[in-house]
Amino acid sequence: MPDDGATRPAQPLESLAPLFAPRAVAVIGASADPQRIGGRPIAYALRAGFEGTLYPVNPNREEIQGVKAWPSVEAIPEPIDFALLAIPAAGVPQALRDCAAKGARAAVIFTAGFAEVGGEGPALQEEILAVAREHGIRLLGPNCLGLFNAATGHCPTFTSGIEAAMPVPGRVGLVTQSGAYGTHLLNMARDRRIGVRQWVSTGNEADVTAPECIGWMAASDEIDLIGVYMEGVNDRPALFAALEAARKARKPVVVMKVGRSAVGAEAAASHTASLAGSDASFDAALRRFGALRAKTTEEMLDILYAAALSPLPKGRRLGVLTASGGAGVLIADAAEDAGLSLPPMPQAAQAAVLAANPLASARNPVDVTAGVLNDFSKVTSATSALRGAGYDMTAAFFTSWTASPVVGPKLREALLAGLEGDVDHPFAMICQGDAEVMRSWEDLGMMTFEDPSRAIHAMGALAHFAEAFEAVEEAPPPAPQGVALPAEPLSELAAKRLLAKAGVPIPDETLAKDAQEASDAAARLGVNCVLKIVSPDLAHKTEVGGVRLNVPPMEMETAAREMLETVAANAPQARIEGLLVGPMAGEGVELIVGARRDPVMGPVMLIGLGGVFTEVMKDVAVELAPLTPAQALKTLNGLRGAPLLHGARGKAPVDVEAAAEAISRLSALAAADPDGFESLEINPLLVTPDGVLALDALIEPRNREDHA
Amino acid sequence: MPDDGATRPAQPLESLAPLFAPRAVAVIGASADPQRIGGRPIAYALRAGFEGTLYPVNPNREEIQGVKAWPSVEAIPEPIDFALLAIPAAGVPQALRDCAAKGARAAVIFTAGFAEVGGEGPALQEEILAVAREHGIRLLGPNCLGLFNAATGHCPTFTSGIEAAMPVPGRVGLVTQSGAYGTHLLNMARDRRIGVRQWVSTGNEADVTAPECIGWMAASDEIDLIGVYMEGVNDRPALFAALEAARKARKPVVVMKVGRSAVGAEAAASHTASLAGSDASFDAALRRFGALRAKTTEEMLDILYAAALSPLPKGRRLGVLTASGGAGVLIADAAEDAGLSLPPMPQAAQAAVLAANPLASARNPVDVTAGVLNDFSKVTSATSALRGAGYDMTAAFFTSWTASPVVGPKLREALLAGLEGDVDHPFAMICQGDAEVMRSWEDLGMMTFEDPSRAIHAMGALAHFAEAFEAVEEAPPPAPQGVALPAEPLSELAAKRLLAKAGVPIPDETLAKDAQEASDAAARLGVNCVLKIVSPDLAHKTEVGGVRLNVPPMEMETAAREMLETVAANAPQARIEGLLVGPMAGEGVELIVGARRDPVMGPVMLIGLGGVFTEVMKDVAVELAPLTPAQALKTLNGLRGAPLLHGARGKAPVDVEAAAEAISRLSALAAADPDGFESLEINPLLVTPDGVLALDALIEPRNREDHA
Repeated sequence: MPDDGATRPAQPLESLAPLFAPRAVAVIGASADPQRIGGRPIAYALRAGFEGTLYPVNPNREEIQGVKAWPSVEAIPEPIDFALLAIPAAGVPQALRDCAAKGARAAVIFTAGFAEVGGEGPALQEEILAVAREHGIRLLGPNCLGLFNAATGHCPTFTSGIEAAMPVPGRVGLVTQSGAYGTHLLNMARDRRIGVRQWVSTGNEADVTAPECIGWMAASDEIDLIGVYMEGVNDRPALFAALEAARKARKPVVVMKVGRSAVGAEAAASHTASLAGSDASFDAALRRFGALRAKTTEEMLDILYAAALSPLPKGRRLGVLTASGGAGVLIADAAEDAGLSLPPMPQAAQAAVLAANPLASARNPVDVTAGVLNDFSKVTSATSALRGAGYDMTAAFFTSWTASPVVGPKLREALLAGLEGDVDHPFAMICQGDAEVMRSWEDLGMMTFEDPSRAIHAMGALAHFAEAFEAVEEAPPPAPQGVALPAEPLSELAAKRLLAKAGVPIPDETLAKDAQEASDAAARLGVNCVLKIVSPDLAHKTEVGGVRLNVPPMEMETAAREMLETVAANAPQARIEGLLVGPMAGEGVELIVGARRDPVMGPVMLIGLGGVFTEVMKDVAVELAPLTPAQALKTLNGLRGAPLLHGARGKAPVDVEAAAEAISRLSALAAADPDGFESLEINPLLVTPDGVLALDALIEPRNREDHA
Repeated sequence: MPDDGATRPAQPLESLAPLFAPRAVAVIGASADPQRIGGRPIAYALRAGFEGTLYPVNPNREEIQGVKAWPSVEAIPEPIDFALLAIPAAGVPQALRDCAAKGARAAVIFTAGFAEVGGEGPALQEEILAVAREHGIRLLGPNCLGLFNAATGHCPTFTSGIEAAMPVPGRVGLVTQSGAYGTHLLNMARDRRIGVRQWVSTGNEADVTAPECIGWMAASDEIDLIGVYMEGVNDRPALFAALEAARKARKPVVVMKVGRSAVGAEAAASHTASLAGSDASFDAALRRFGALRAKTTEEMLDILYAAALSPLPKGRRLGVLTASGGAGVLIADAAEDAGLSLPPMPQAAQAAVLAANPLASARNPVDVTAGVLNDFSKVTSATSALRGAGYDMTAAFFTSWTASPVVGPKLREALLAGLEGDVDHPFAMICQGDAEVMRSWEDLGMMTFEDPSRAIHAMGALAHFAEAFEAVEEAPPPAPQGVALPAEPLSELAAKRLLAKAGVPIPDETLAKDAQEASDAAARLGVNCVLKIVSPDLAHKTEVGGVRLNVPPMEMETAAREMLETVAANAPQARIEGLLVGPMAGEGVELIVGARRDPVMGPVMLIGLGGVFTEVMKDVAVELAPLTPAQALKTLNGLRGAPLLHGARGKAPVDVEAAAEAISRLSALAAADPDGFESLEINPLLVTPDGVLALDALIEPRNREDHA
């Protein structure tokens, strides 16, 4: 199996079709009690009007919940394509074989007691996986809550999240690695009137993984946007493919990935089998593919809610219509946090608002004041002016006016008149009222929120997706030709020369075997030089007198001789391979640029300003490798210390483009052989006004001891 | 009037008693229609059982809403202590005079059309303020929504926020500078079952300010915690006094201050008369007094909700009980964000949990798994183990189990058995259900939340208040004696000598009038010296050859002579006052320390690491002056770059205590004459392993041009 972060062979997405949309479903362990684990899926499917055929299997009953039951899988008279197993663990392997014999191509296993427990569990999980592989069955679970597909009424799940009712119609897909939290999410989504069409709980992920399910939804005609609750990633290639497919299909993906904290990561590791990759690497992956990470459950649902109701905006310009000056200020604050702008209305539009309503504030926010309660035509004129100003989004604050049977309809009429009946851009109605009130506004295509801050945050997310989907796709940088990463450590000079072959500029340095060669090298360079001892045994060259700066060519021979003597005296055991002679570097800004092999996310780049900026201020960006020069430039310019590159404090700007190019080259080297190294580090990468030089480099070869 | 940030003379808090708790209330402009502005207050008071007497005034009616009406204020047969004015602006001054004649000591003026509009408005507001002052009436408004006091049924407000019902009983006070947003808040608080006992909308704040109302509530026996929606501060002394009183009374204060953003500040300024102080200064004030700033409405309400239901915790140790591993991970993440710790359970307690429930995770989070649905005694044993472990707070996640009429009661019984019936510490029940379900848990003293992240964030706020209320009160540093801030700019040396008198160490420098004196000074110092030209005309000394470093005493005379010649050649117009000679400073870390006069918050300190850390990385702390040495030390240690002070990157630690002492001295100087300067800046304050030295100082005298 390739070591690309996948822990299983890739399978085509079509193989998930019998899982999500089967025609003939056997329920092994079917119960007549619609409250029991083996009874709920049948009750749910009947209520949802499952469009295929159900075959409850139960040796003790003729019928189950009104459906003819069968004594065994074998007894089912037709082929099945799907099996639900709600039976004790010990019986699962044989039941799976029986279903395979009947034609099943997919199975959901509710049963716990597999890899998540000790003892026989892991071996039993291996066994059912082997059965599934042998017979070409895709397996969801074990130890999962199953899935539902509201489009077909397929409901092989015992989640209580659809006990009260199926979700309202909609086109949201939810993928969860936690059954219980996935149910919590479903309940919260229902209260928020979010139309969840497909929901899947992946449990132990013996076979089918959460990333595969995201990929299925990204490809599904039934799904427009995807929410994910995730604890760990076992399947990087599937995740990247799924996120990329969603981006290309313009489907927003919002991910809540838990285990950010130390204790959280430990707790996650203890109850999933996932490797702990770095959290920053996970962020980098989402960023690369335009997905959003939500920090809280409500944030995720807010964004899904907004994206389900609204078109995406054309830009980040927000118009604000409010009946409360205070709410306008609050919204302006929230907009800044969300990266939205509130440009003022054109003068003519302001004049129009004020002509109709002299007490209004007309700039933006447009505060019509509570006085309009006496004359709703002022709401219409203000709305019309805002619409004419062409904002990309509108936020309207009318507090509890919407809840009043008298005021609500007047407000609605006035707003729609101002909009000419056409809610063609993201429009958040920030208001109060019961579900029916809120729904009446949602039916117009407006989002409703009670908390202004949450409304604006969700609109910021819409703007993010609009930009991510419009972004021009950049071809990754080409892999360097004829450069192979070493299996063993390299000396500094060898490491730098390897980088040079990959396209990273390095100083013109010579390895001199003695003082005479050092002098010759300095004479050839014709400038003041750096002189360094070269030894595999001396990690701290300065301490043994092994570094001298600013040596004039004329003095090089003496300096070199002295250095050899001094080092020999200070470190008599050290093997001396020679002396490194190179030109003194000019003034500039030092970067630290590294590539690391993240065990989960693959090769990632760490990019920061050198010294205290990285070590003390933690001003380091993490991005997936490879990066194009443009992506590297954006990353550099996103550092807090970026002004230092552009001539802060009276210094000359340095050649940031050259730095970005060098970073891109290093990233291409890392990406070309993602499993061929542990880390590649340039520290420092000196950026001067004239270019860039890798002044020191360290290549840590791949440690393969962890791969038996 | 002293220039201390107050825009009005201070009045005693007792003067607000007739505003919040009057006995005899006249309603001028009373309406028989309970929906109208002049009718609502009467309807509300009647429903709330106002315990005083209502005197509706209306010349056209015998009775109003069943209460005897009076044709004029004069006709009221007894003295009144409170008047509500719901009449057009032009009539307000005379009505106020009439009420004064009848004994009114407080009035609420709903009417708009005063300072918030142009034209006659501001003059009219001045007029009513003059009437109020003349007659000793405290005035709320104009242009406000009034107030209510549920304790007495006093409801002079037309907010729709109590239209459906009065709030549930409780001890929360709300102060709002926005009537409309204050109503929105009330509605949200009602849905959250928060017991708002007093609510006040301050409108134009012609007289009574929001800070005064906070102070009233801080002193009130009826109120235990206070929420504030604020747009601007006109009354710093009242704000500080109120926050300090609340802290001493152990009453949590949560403030939502809007206008953080540029557009928001502009919008706030356009509809309030408040000065825009720096947002960081406002944060500093809240921090100093232990109040919390909420960024969103929900955050404010969450914290009020939690603090209303829970005792404060003894520490930050959180125990987590969960039926979902995923929720446990999510809670652990949120706890890290909130600064709460999740120490593991003692081994014996873990063993006890596992003995009862082998499938559980017992460390912390304690994940009992959904398996306990079959045996709730496992919930009891886990709860009991957590209780025994003595955590300061508990978060329990049981998703929608609470909503089930079957499971809910079992869960409740099992939990209470584990707690031995005693919810004596903050306990968050993270669950789902309707209001009745939630209330049933709240009745046990538990907080309920649906979103785990919000629960944990609120618990972090509880821990904050516990710490703020327990913090030892430090005496402010003494004011420096015999030091007066100058009215005119000082030279660098004079500025430094002034700081030295205030207790800030400065180098041993001499102002030499010629080369000979410079040489003598260097000889006296006996070490290599700094030599600088002294001229009021040379801001950039280095550029004209006016700075030399590391001059040996023997070479000082020559160096000084050369400098005088060079500067004369480069800047022939500059007036030369002499030469500054001082010892070369040692190696250390440079700080920038400044005091600024914030127009709203008074003297504040800006404290940061020098150079790029301040200018590029914006690593600057803002705190109110004065700071004790301990407070200054805490501030320094809170800088992102603080590790540099403690010996990062192989350097020796510097004398942070000496730096803190110097900062405290500078802050005491600023606080002693808060209106005597615009800024005092030490840049750099050099901190070495042996002490601290102000290497340069600049005093910007108070610009009094803005004070006619």
